[in-house]
Amino acid sequence: MELYFLGTGAGMPARHRNVTSIVLNLLPERGTIWLFDCGEGTQHQILRSPVKLSKSEKMFITHLHGDHLFGLPGLLSSRSYQGGDTPFVIYGPKGLKAFVDTSLGLSQVHLDYELVVHEIEEDGVVFEDANFRVEAASLEHRIECFGYRIIEKDLPGKLQLDKLRELGVTAGPLYGRLKQGHTVLLEDGRELKGDQFVGPSIKGRIVTILGDTKPCSNSSLLAADADVLVHEATFGAERADLADAYDHSTTEQAALTAKEAGVKTLIMTHISSRYQGEGAEQLVQEARAHHADSWLAEDFWSYTVPRK
Amino acid sequence: MELYFLGTGAGMPARHRNVTSIVLNLLPERGTIWLFDCGEGTQHQILRSPVKLSKSEKMFITHLHGDHLFGLPGLLSSRSYQGGDTPFVIYGPKGLKAFVDTSLGLSQVHLDYELVVHEIEEDGVVFEDANFRVEAASLEHRIECFGYRIIEKDLPGKLQLDKLRELGVTAGPLYGRLKQGHTVLLEDGRELKGDQFVGPSIKGRIVTILGDTKPCSNSSLLAADADVLVHEATFGAERADLADAYDHSTTEQAALTAKEAGVKTLIMTHISSRYQGEGAEQLVQEARAHHADSWLAEDFWSYTVPRK
Repeated sequence: MELYFLGTGAGMPARHRNVTSIVLNLLPERGTIWLFDCGEGTQHQILRSPVKLSKSEKMFITHLHGDHLFGLPGLLSSRSYQGGDTPFVIYGPKGLKAFVDTSLGLSQVHLDYELVVHEIEEDGVVFEDANFRVEAASLEHRIECFGYRIIEKDLPGKLQLDKLRELGVTAGPLYGRLKQGHTVLLEDGRELKGDQFVGPSIKGRIVTILGDTKPCSNSSLLAADADVLVHEATFGAERADLADAYDHSTTEQAALTAKEAGVKTLIMTHISSRYQGEGAEQLVQEARAHHADSWLAEDFWSYTVPRK
Repeated sequence: MELYFLGTGAGMPARHRNVTSIVLNLLPERGTIWLFDCGEGTQHQILRSPVKLSKSEKMFITHLHGDHLFGLPGLLSSRSYQGGDTPFVIYGPKGLKAFVDTSLGLSQVHLDYELVVHEIEEDGVVFEDANFRVEAASLEHRIECFGYRIIEKDLPGKLQLDKLRELGVTAGPLYGRLKQGHTVLLEDGRELKGDQFVGPSIKGRIVTILGDTKPCSNSSLLAADADVLVHEATFGAERADLADAYDHSTTEQAALTAKEAGVKTLIMTHISSRYQGEGAEQLVQEARAHHADSWLAEDFWSYTVPRK
């Protein structure tokens, strides 16, 4: 589970920060990658990265502002050209389907894969399977905008091999049954209960990725106890007036949300192009004053989400 | 009058060739630039170029395939952010207005300038003023596709200053009237006829920029006697089969069109990413075998259109 930042700028592409797109690399966990937002030039950034578009499985769009959306039709077309033939699902606000249908329809794109656009009707669970659940909730921005909470489900604990070997039980199919918690009867009449040989379950991780927003209660709910919170910080603390006027957040506001929600690591993104060099360093310091484990994302920067 | 190539690749962005966009720099002639096609990432290429988006006046779209179109909503938004406040007119095939309206509407873009989308109903003149005329004609591609012929009108000849000085006529307002061809009465009773003091008119230039096409008669009509023809050459001569299958052209076909139309300079663009290094050099040689004055465009390459 790794976050990889394809674009970390705000509003317009700048020389060193493209507009928003974030990869959640789930190759070890499910053999696929998920994408969050798709500003113009996202496929160009992918060309310059180790990311393989053909491995993409899902796209979560936070909102329909162009700097989070306008790369989508090109990326969808190129996914087909590049051999992507597995289904692809896009989640996002109402209007997303009209945008996708109009752009792909007018340009007569033929996709070699099944495309599903899932418009989110209300806050709640938007995806769930045996291993992951994704919850969405509305944020406060100038336009309908969602944040996503990605929950990795707990994994079963490890089989305590030493304990089994001590009892003279050798590896075989019954190891698997024990690991699943079943009770197993040995040939010599002994009965082994799975739960006595399986360690504590391995805690799943929580990654929260928010769209553009001013501070709001749903940010805290989505971020509660998350291992990582990706939060916009369009402005430094000194421009709280601008952040407020445009429904964005400052570094301090992002850090306070992280702190209050009990987040372990805060990663700030969606950085205005006015902050470069020392200006960018200042942003990190502002956040760390409130939440020590805070970082500023850069394009092509990755963060492996550790287990607690 | 200068051509500046922002993107010269085909189908998908590649590392060294972005998808199609061409600038016709008319800063010396009318203080503005015109753009032809707008593949995804065109605004990113502009960031890395001397081109000023705020100086753009018109956009001509050849066809609605994504590699010629998907950069448009982002470019239109950024033009506003970057201080573009003069009207902007886009010409192109039917469907263009729906694409622009849907993308800008759903993303709630507010433009600080007047935007006009002019869908071309039939072949003919799409724009004309005192100095330029633009004609469009349908090409042969998988989708409705236009080529554009940009005609610079002839300029009045230069006033023959030596001849006037010989007659003792000194500079003043009457110079302007003579240049406009009027007859002027001097104080000493002499009558001077403008046409006797004005050199031959200065021939306007013709630039033809075609969209994707297989060889067709309209390509030749649009290119007749042009100073420059910008023609796609998606494939080398050896892949005429692919060119035919996908309604594209080869280098040889582009060169033969240029030759037959009496074009001075051929510039080939829309090059498949399979041709690099020596492969690209080979493309130029194939064209020059038929039309000596042939060139292969590269991203960020410019060509000043000389007067004959």
